[in-house]
Amino acid sequence: MPVPAKLQMGSGQLVIDQLFTVAVNGARDARLDSGISRFLDQLSRQTGMPLLKQPADTAKASLVIHCENAGRKIQELSEDEAYTLEVTPTQATLTAPNTLGALHGLQTFLQLIEVTPAGFAVPALTIQDQPRFAWRGLLIDVCRHFLPLDVMRRNLDGMAALKMNVLHWHLSDDEGFRVESRKFPKLHEMGSQGQYYTQAEIREFVSYARDRGIRVVPEFEMPGHSRSIVVGYPDLASQPGTYPPGRVAGDATALDVTQEKTYKFLDKLIEEMAGLFPDAYFHIGGDEVDDKPWNSNPKIQEFIHAHGMKDNRDLQAYFNKRLERMVSKHGKIMMGWDEILHPDLPKNVVVQSWRGQESLAAAAKQGYRGLLSNGYYLDLMWPAARHYAVDPMSGAAAALTPEEAKLILGGEACMWAEYITPETIDSRIWPRLAPIAERFWSPQNVTDPKSMYQRLDEISWRLGWLGLTHESNYLPMLRRLAGAEDVRSLRVLADAVEPTKDYTRSEVFPQPPVQSVSLNRLVDAARPESATARHFAELVGSFVASGYKDSASEAQIRAWLVKWQGNHTNLKPLMERSFLLTEDLPLSEDLVTLSAACLQAIDALAKNQTLPDSWRTEQLAVVERSMKPRANLLIMIAPSIQKMIEAASPPASHP
Amino acid sequence: MPVPAKLQMGSGQLVIDQLFTVAVNGARDARLDSGISRFLDQLSRQTGMPLLKQPADTAKASLVIHCENAGRKIQELSEDEAYTLEVTPTQATLTAPNTLGALHGLQTFLQLIEVTPAGFAVPALTIQDQPRFAWRGLLIDVCRHFLPLDVMRRNLDGMAALKMNVLHWHLSDDEGFRVESRKFPKLHEMGSQGQYYTQAEIREFVSYARDRGIRVVPEFEMPGHSRSIVVGYPDLASQPGTYPPGRVAGDATALDVTQEKTYKFLDKLIEEMAGLFPDAYFHIGGDEVDDKPWNSNPKIQEFIHAHGMKDNRDLQAYFNKRLERMVSKHGKIMMGWDEILHPDLPKNVVVQSWRGQESLAAAAKQGYRGLLSNGYYLDLMWPAARHYAVDPMSGAAAALTPEEAKLILGGEACMWAEYITPETIDSRIWPRLAPIAERFWSPQNVTDPKSMYQRLDEISWRLGWLGLTHESNYLPMLRRLAGAEDVRSLRVLADAVEPTKDYTRSEVFPQPPVQSVSLNRLVDAARPESATARHFAELVGSFVASGYKDSASEAQIRAWLVKWQGNHTNLKPLMERSFLLTEDLPLSEDLVTLSAACLQAIDALAKNQTLPDSWRTEQLAVVERSMKPRANLLIMIAPSIQKMIEAASPPASHP
Repeated sequence: MPVPAKLQMGSGQLVIDQLFTVAVNGARDARLDSGISRFLDQLSRQTGMPLLKQPADTAKASLVIHCENAGRKIQELSEDEAYTLEVTPTQATLTAPNTLGALHGLQTFLQLIEVTPAGFAVPALTIQDQPRFAWRGLLIDVCRHFLPLDVMRRNLDGMAALKMNVLHWHLSDDEGFRVESRKFPKLHEMGSQGQYYTQAEIREFVSYARDRGIRVVPEFEMPGHSRSIVVGYPDLASQPGTYPPGRVAGDATALDVTQEKTYKFLDKLIEEMAGLFPDAYFHIGGDEVDDKPWNSNPKIQEFIHAHGMKDNRDLQAYFNKRLERMVSKHGKIMMGWDEILHPDLPKNVVVQSWRGQESLAAAAKQGYRGLLSNGYYLDLMWPAARHYAVDPMSGAAAALTPEEAKLILGGEACMWAEYITPETIDSRIWPRLAPIAERFWSPQNVTDPKSMYQRLDEISWRLGWLGLTHESNYLPMLRRLAGAEDVRSLRVLADAVEPTKDYTRSEVFPQPPVQSVSLNRLVDAARPESATARHFAELVGSFVASGYKDSASEAQIRAWLVKWQGNHTNLKPLMERSFLLTEDLPLSEDLVTLSAACLQAIDALAKNQTLPDSWRTEQLAVVERSMKPRANLLIMIAPSIQKMIEAASPPASHP
Repeated sequence: MPVPAKLQMGSGQLVIDQLFTVAVNGARDARLDSGISRFLDQLSRQTGMPLLKQPADTAKASLVIHCENAGRKIQELSEDEAYTLEVTPTQATLTAPNTLGALHGLQTFLQLIEVTPAGFAVPALTIQDQPRFAWRGLLIDVCRHFLPLDVMRRNLDGMAALKMNVLHWHLSDDEGFRVESRKFPKLHEMGSQGQYYTQAEIREFVSYARDRGIRVVPEFEMPGHSRSIVVGYPDLASQPGTYPPGRVAGDATALDVTQEKTYKFLDKLIEEMAGLFPDAYFHIGGDEVDDKPWNSNPKIQEFIHAHGMKDNRDLQAYFNKRLERMVSKHGKIMMGWDEILHPDLPKNVVVQSWRGQESLAAAAKQGYRGLLSNGYYLDLMWPAARHYAVDPMSGAAAALTPEEAKLILGGEACMWAEYITPETIDSRIWPRLAPIAERFWSPQNVTDPKSMYQRLDEISWRLGWLGLTHESNYLPMLRRLAGAEDVRSLRVLADAVEPTKDYTRSEVFPQPPVQSVSLNRLVDAARPESATARHFAELVGSFVASGYKDSASEAQIRAWLVKWQGNHTNLKPLMERSFLLTEDLPLSEDLVTLSAACLQAIDALAKNQTLPDSWRTEQLAVVERSMKPRANLLIMIAPSIQKMIEAASPPASHP
């Protein structure tokens, strides 16, 4: 995963043992060397074999790598990322135009290693592979919750494993300014609650990313989402006054873009940050500029009228135009969210769409390059298949001319950080990012969700070898909730629920600053997508499709139902002992009720009986309740049970 | 855990919420401050609550700490480690003579936090606590397998949580010299395979340990176990020639202690290392000096005769005497293993006993201080209860006079590293080290294994919050073995087996250097002590004790047996696909056979029937086979099943 562009199976396999060696016979540079060294470490880790690391020449090496050149000094969007991997029972050969392709090929090789009766091995095959899109990104927001660099690094490792090549680092927002600024030290001193990256750390991190074939595009939000800027520099704000650190819900801040000192400040800040981040692209945010701060400042409204603008949107366009000239002057290409789109901007600006393919297509028609993020918001807690079905070239984008279509550079998944912590972020990103990565890399016709899920189950545990904690943090969080070692019954419930979807999460206490909410509840431990519910739905689907005759499915369905029905007896005492679980009691009770109803349904179906309307009405009420958020959770087996209830008690058709 | 010396429960509880604060009103130093900061971080981690960290004065703080003084600049053996912790529903107070006691008290506080219906809380109580022994150590061998510093650090964190206070760092042995030496750089350059700690790393690590109330005692093995020294400095060896790096089994090396240059070398080396390690004690090894290298060098034998010595042991005593003077000159107290004991040595030398209480008592009778390690070897794969039952003051040591008894300083658990890697070491140390730590800390009469196991289950998952991987690495290792995500059936087997005990592990291939053996088999994933087997034995015990009438136990026994009996059907296909699991097939088959036999036994007992002799003979053969190592594993439920078989088919008593 992602599925390669072209794959041909051979016969036999290349055994990987402790004598495994790598030789390089083409261009060689430090990045390739460190890539090979990481590859060997990773191979050791995932197989548990210490490699003897004896030197080997091209003729005898297990894997021979040939790159034509090392690639650009600063990784570029236009670089060729293709590679060819040929594996025979005696040797593997990896060739690529440059190091980027070789790095991707090494990741493919690691994924191909499997345990066989004859040892660890890679099947004989030939892969010719290249990405569909040049821009395959992940946005990570470090403003709502700060993320230490080790968390960032392990997620970069995961991205590299999935052949993603852009980290979009959301570094400033209302809640925090996360970079040390030497020119304007009050930015990080007053606007970060002490949680920021030093410039030395940033440089090291950018180099870590480059080593893995990943560009780092920084984002500094302006003119909205800028509260963390005005905490230290209140005279840049549209409203006079002081801005205490820490955001309260409902705050709206915007820079005063009518005064020259704002531009002087930004010019210096952009100069400093442009020097810190080598990538050619510079993201200025530009989304969701609230009208309130500009409307309530008469000076600003006067400025709008005096300059013949019709509204705040025109003012933002004026700002963006000036901003673009500054960004350009400092050697960067400006990027922003949908809202920056305006015909006054030069055509090299890149628009990132959080709104959808329509605005992406609209931008392309005007000659602007664009990225799709709508449909790839990981914080919406969608199932993997839903993200997987979103294609940057679908909808309005499908109607573009070939020339216009070329302007769609790819996409970016977004991990907004209102409800994540270092403990939970991996489980929000992984494994669901893998199918999105496949969408950006693999041919457009790779769309089968069933095949995707099979590969997803496999990649998920393999990602654990990189230190990602999406699986390993699950049980510890359940144990914290229960205050006990034996959490089997809690796990049964946790496996059957999912966090509510979209932006429906609500907190039961008065909203404190987002960073101080305790994210230690069942909703935080539960996975965005329940594999249990998915498997149960497949079983119910098979059973229904068989006309209720598939006895293997029936037996498995019954086993699940019996487990769920009996679970509350064990879980209740745990729940009553823990204040964190009290809110989940109704969910556990309804799991029993749903299971009981489904068992009645399956009994009736087995006997070819029909259950009465009154029964159906009563049970469907429980189903409905289960599909509504409680404790910010949904019981995800409910839709499958609804199907069985309706099968066992079909509504009488009206005359 | 460890159980405190004195505990009195109060009524009510102190709720721990996000407003939790700590105030200090006595002596304050950097070590206490960093201890409090780590305490707050750990509190956050284990509760999942971000703390608001508002300042608080003594009157309002949740926890008030009062130390009389900061403790010695270099931690000493004689320091008072006592503390008193008083918790009321409104405030907790921790008082201690010095920072060491306060650090211990903070660990106690963390362990007391539990989840309750009213929030996280600590029960109201008063604890007056101090250690039974002043020396509570863990030896970690980093020679047979090198351990990176992050692995070392997380294990120090675990030791601190269990109130242990000495890390005995086994830094040189035949397989490696693990410290950078500036005076003799060939030691680490040629004798470490590139795996060593720099002096800067050592200094940082020692300070990390000191912050946690842990002394670091280095060990440099001499005159035996010294191959890694003579690789770079062959003219120190008893045999002329060159010593290629990397040890082969059967190699025996000893320094030539008859030549003056050996002493000049050691004097400089000890000077350098004494400067690097601030602790007052310096361990020179001294164990298992092989006779071969000395016997086969006529010059050395001549020296022995010329100096009126009778044998190699006298020569070692001569060496130790000179060594002790050097160690002393460089400001340290010499320690060594049993074999160094010799009346010529001054009385401040400390003897560490790997042989048992007898040699410990013998040393004490001669006026030497001693430590017990025999009985605490974690690499022997004993169950926790067996280590727990070993007391430094039992056996011959119990007969010492009170004066002599004072010379027993405590004990050290030993983690020898032939069969561990960074991936497996935590599971070999934890949780079994916890009861040993309790043995060293708690009153001598705390010996009930049942109570110990209850607390052990609790501490084990709590230790995971420190980043220890004894639980979290289990499933990933099983997944590697199976090459699959779903390893439920493999886990059923893995849960029921244990690695063979004592030094019986054998490798099926010609013995390569120990560091290059792949430690990725079921024996490496399996826990030293099977909780499943322990619980099953308890069930069988209850059932037998009830005269086969305890139906609750019977039902649970049957449930286990049915699971084991059916397991092979699911496991076999996994095993046949993986070369790593082939060797375990007979174990999985015997699990079925044993379970079937036990089900027959339980049926017979339920019906008050007796099964024939021939049946018993046949089944006991399987039991016997199961208790013999195969693939270096034992089926640990076999003894319980034997009990049931014999109950259902008692041998006819002879006339």
